[in-house]
Amino acid sequence: MNDDYLKGDERIDQLYSHNIKIIQSPSVFSFSLDAVMLADFATPKLAKSSLTVDLCAGNGAVGLFLSDKTHGHIIEVEIQERLSDMAARSVQLNDLSDRISVQNEDLKDAVVTIGKEKADTVTVNPPYFVDTDTSKKNPNEYLAIARHEIKTNLEQIITTSGELLKSGGKLFMVNRTDRLTELLDLLKNHHMAAKRIQFIYPKEESDANMMLVSAIKDGKQTGLKINPPITVMKDSDEYTAKVKEMLYGK
Amino acid sequence: MNDDYLKGDERIDQLYSHNIKIIQSPSVFSFSLDAVMLADFATPKLAKSSLTVDLCAGNGAVGLFLSDKTHGHIIEVEIQERLSDMAARSVQLNDLSDRISVQNEDLKDAVVTIGKEKADTVTVNPPYFVDTDTSKKNPNEYLAIARHEIKTNLEQIITTSGELLKSGGKLFMVNRTDRLTELLDLLKNHHMAAKRIQFIYPKEESDANMMLVSAIKDGKQTGLKINPPITVMKDSDEYTAKVKEMLYGK
Repeated sequence: MNDDYLKGDERIDQLYSHNIKIIQSPSVFSFSLDAVMLADFATPKLAKSSLTVDLCAGNGAVGLFLSDKTHGHIIEVEIQERLSDMAARSVQLNDLSDRISVQNEDLKDAVVTIGKEKADTVTVNPPYFVDTDTSKKNPNEYLAIARHEIKTNLEQIITTSGELLKSGGKLFMVNRTDRLTELLDLLKNHHMAAKRIQFIYPKEESDANMMLVSAIKDGKQTGLKINPPITVMKDSDEYTAKVKEMLYGK
Repeated sequence: MNDDYLKGDERIDQLYSHNIKIIQSPSVFSFSLDAVMLADFATPKLAKSSLTVDLCAGNGAVGLFLSDKTHGHIIEVEIQERLSDMAARSVQLNDLSDRISVQNEDLKDAVVTIGKEKADTVTVNPPYFVDTDTSKKNPNEYLAIARHEIKTNLEQIITTSGELLKSGGKLFMVNRTDRLTELLDLLKNHHMAAKRIQFIYPKEESDANMMLVSAIKDGKQTGLKINPPITVMKDSDEYTAKVKEMLYGK
């Protein structure tokens, strides 16, 4: 019984495009479209000997979605015990324990537990918002930590990603567009070169609010590509064909 | 007679959306869609007392197009004597001599002739390509100088723009997307903050190749907006409605 895997208000959701079941909880953490888009954008190394590390893993959605894009091992790193426990149970639920492991730790410690320059691929769907004294945070601590830079921040995430990645390894991140300048700056300062950016527009004629970014460790700082725009919703408030395919498959 | 204004293989083209006539020459310089898009993107200060400076003015297209978006004075700065002569004659042709002046000089000298922190708005459609020993340049020197960084480069252009602009003044630039990282870096180092970027996609599902960027002198390095994408051509190789409007008006 799937219910054996569940605690409290948890439920099991299915992402049909990846044929993956995920334990979700409205009061703790539910993956968003951003996680689906990050997994779709990422091109992890395929080889069985490869290592992919997903930082800020939450309930493990991105790592689970990536399991059909690599034959290698995936490590999910999540600081919140409650969320990493959900991730670990989702791994069992999908019978992926031989290929995905979950580490409940601060991502800055992952460099010690995993080792320097061991990862071929790093993915991360980080907290988007700077944490200031006046920033309006979610009163639910689980959600506040997932959304605001309370336990980590963009500089720490880029530092750790750079340390984890082998030379030539690839980073894939989703973030808000208003952090573009800062992100490109941090990548360069940590010997990574942005190679592809894809902007996400909520509607056809609106400003982009999100972006997908790939970077290569020790790559040349030239040849950045801006991939075709992703528009999420049609004017009719229905998902566009591109997003439907990410969610439900072809 | 309009022909009195013309030399050699020059002809007069009309941009209907702005009701402007421009002297063009296939062997010397013709404005491109990039100039039209830059003028459309730019929001120069409106006031009669305002000053707009167009750097790398070429045959003066951008300055001429901007004349219906500001009541102020416009200075066009162009290093190539032949091109600045075309620009000056187009200004006469459009009866705009009281509002537009053309300066034939290296843009780095414009800080002396115009003065520091005098401009409310700077626009620039610069040479896009880095000049290296191996770079494939147009054998036509006029066109080579317009396209390759032979007489100036992005760093010099950003330095000059920063010096010309008043605090709070705005820069509007068009450039190739592969210079994004470098451009954001230079803007920050010269006390300008990127505020809006609009990416230009040649076709619906292709990577962007061009971008429009606005920045504010002494602005805060936060709150960058990515405006809706501009797609140039439909699959049928016809201009999209958005581009048609820029060229032919509503």
